[in-house]
Amino acid sequence: MDKKQLVDCHNRIKPHIHNTPVIKSSLINSITGADIYFKCDNFQKMGAFKMRGATNAILQLHDSQKSKGVVTHSSGNFAQALSLAAKSIGVKAYIIMPSTATEIKKIAVKGYGGILIECEPNLRAREKAAQKIVETKGATFIHPSNDDQVILGQGTACKELIEKYNNLDYILAPVGGGGLIAGSALAAKYFGQNCKVIGAEPYEVDDAYRSIISGKIETNKTTNTIADGLKTQLGDKNFPIIKKEVHSIIRITEKEIIESMKIIWERLKIVCEPSCSLPLAAVIKNNTFFKGKKVGIIISGGNVDLKNLPF
Amino acid sequence: MDKKQLVDCHNRIKPHIHNTPVIKSSLINSITGADIYFKCDNFQKMGAFKMRGATNAILQLHDSQKSKGVVTHSSGNFAQALSLAAKSIGVKAYIIMPSTATEIKKIAVKGYGGILIECEPNLRAREKAAQKIVETKGATFIHPSNDDQVILGQGTACKELIEKYNNLDYILAPVGGGGLIAGSALAAKYFGQNCKVIGAEPYEVDDAYRSIISGKIETNKTTNTIADGLKTQLGDKNFPIIKKEVHSIIRITEKEIIESMKIIWERLKIVCEPSCSLPLAAVIKNNTFFKGKKVGIIISGGNVDLKNLPF
Repeated sequence: MDKKQLVDCHNRIKPHIHNTPVIKSSLINSITGADIYFKCDNFQKMGAFKMRGATNAILQLHDSQKSKGVVTHSSGNFAQALSLAAKSIGVKAYIIMPSTATEIKKIAVKGYGGILIECEPNLRAREKAAQKIVETKGATFIHPSNDDQVILGQGTACKELIEKYNNLDYILAPVGGGGLIAGSALAAKYFGQNCKVIGAEPYEVDDAYRSIISGKIETNKTTNTIADGLKTQLGDKNFPIIKKEVHSIIRITEKEIIESMKIIWERLKIVCEPSCSLPLAAVIKNNTFFKGKKVGIIISGGNVDLKNLPF
Repeated sequence: MDKKQLVDCHNRIKPHIHNTPVIKSSLINSITGADIYFKCDNFQKMGAFKMRGATNAILQLHDSQKSKGVVTHSSGNFAQALSLAAKSIGVKAYIIMPSTATEIKKIAVKGYGGILIECEPNLRAREKAAQKIVETKGATFIHPSNDDQVILGQGTACKELIEKYNNLDYILAPVGGGGLIAGSALAAKYFGQNCKVIGAEPYEVDDAYRSIISGKIETNKTTNTIADGLKTQLGDKNFPIIKKEVHSIIRITEKEIIESMKIIWERLKIVCEPSCSLPLAAVIKNNTFFKGKKVGIIISGGNVDLKNLPF
């Protein structure tokens, strides 16, 4: 995907998304020794960066495709993002969700106008249910992270950050399915001045770290992390970009995730998901490396269950 | 206090404070039927609007006074605000705090460079300890809310909000010691276009509500509220302003405070104190009154104990 495609994507989705604020904390800078710029996509519509990719993927469809709707399987933010993006564009969104998903998530999807279809809680059942909607309704399947148009959309958060601060040395983002980190790496390559992108990933779900070492997509044996947005796997569309364009992946323990999350909530005064705190944890644990550097961090989302906080 | 004094105060403190952002939520607007503008002083330096008044009070002193320092008694945000403001201006701050105050609060004051002096946990001991510092060190006593220069400083949050959105019908602020609501009422009078200021106060600490009815300063029999920033009493400097310039005081139950706080955290994605949620609760419970109106809300601070949330 080239620079023009990313520019076109951004122009296409601009009327549908917020250019979210960038915030700083002198106290966090003094803790880390780095100069950190937090790009707050927890303030994005629907509360997460996923709104960007979902919107771009739908806007890319032909009118005949739009009239038949879109379908995805997700129990996370992409389910809500596709529902809201589809609603605001005037398209139907079919959302396949495991029957075991929490009631809060089901209500959120329906609240954004998504058509909820429940299935057995396993990948095969999800894929089968999605395939059935494709066949019976003619809907277009959109993958939450392994889709070129989704990857481009997710890259626009990083593009906006660089447009505001064009001299960043590093940009850090959490790594889940790989859409955000791949899109960010493309944006940094095309718009940054020698700006390198680094991923942050839980030790418990370190498929990206191992995939970069082995050179092929590795799978996760465990997904036992508090960072529920990062339990997903890389895919064949985003992995080649990650392999080529991402500087490195830093792994983070569960304890480091919670400590960093507490710093963000207490000092930045923002509500964000556990996933968002991995990049700051990466800077804290590698403070010698990042010392004196200008570092951008993508705060990816703010949809948390306040009844279930780790503090 | 006239318009020029408020303009001068704002110009004086501008280099020392943030002009904090104003945020909106289409979902909260759809819940309330009002058009709400949240002025986020939880993002202020030190995490609360108190930084404004503390800074102004110190900057107003003569050099001979500055050289001898300032003193206050507070176990809340004003203790931290005076410490940080004094530090950034290069003045000593003596902070009288009850020995029963939490360790977190003591550490915060010392972290901002304040000189902590502990006393017995009652008002008489606090006042005596402060008086002793005035006598022995020559320090100037600064009251957290009942001080003209503090009132002017607190009014600058409302002034900034009106300068950004000059057509607000109402501005709501929580009522504790009375500095914020009095300052806001002055700012709305001098800079608003028929903009009325309304206070929001817990039923459990409704001295302002009863004082406006009786025409004299009433005391609180209980202070049993989760809104720990609002347990203080009105004073003789701010009450005359409140009596003359404030439109009305709306009382809020403890349950309403928590429900409104949850909406703010979940939807605005910001960390703020229980005190901040009273104005939104006031709009929600009086939605017919506020329907279709442009309403400013002062989010007063974001210093919370994450280990002790009401969710």
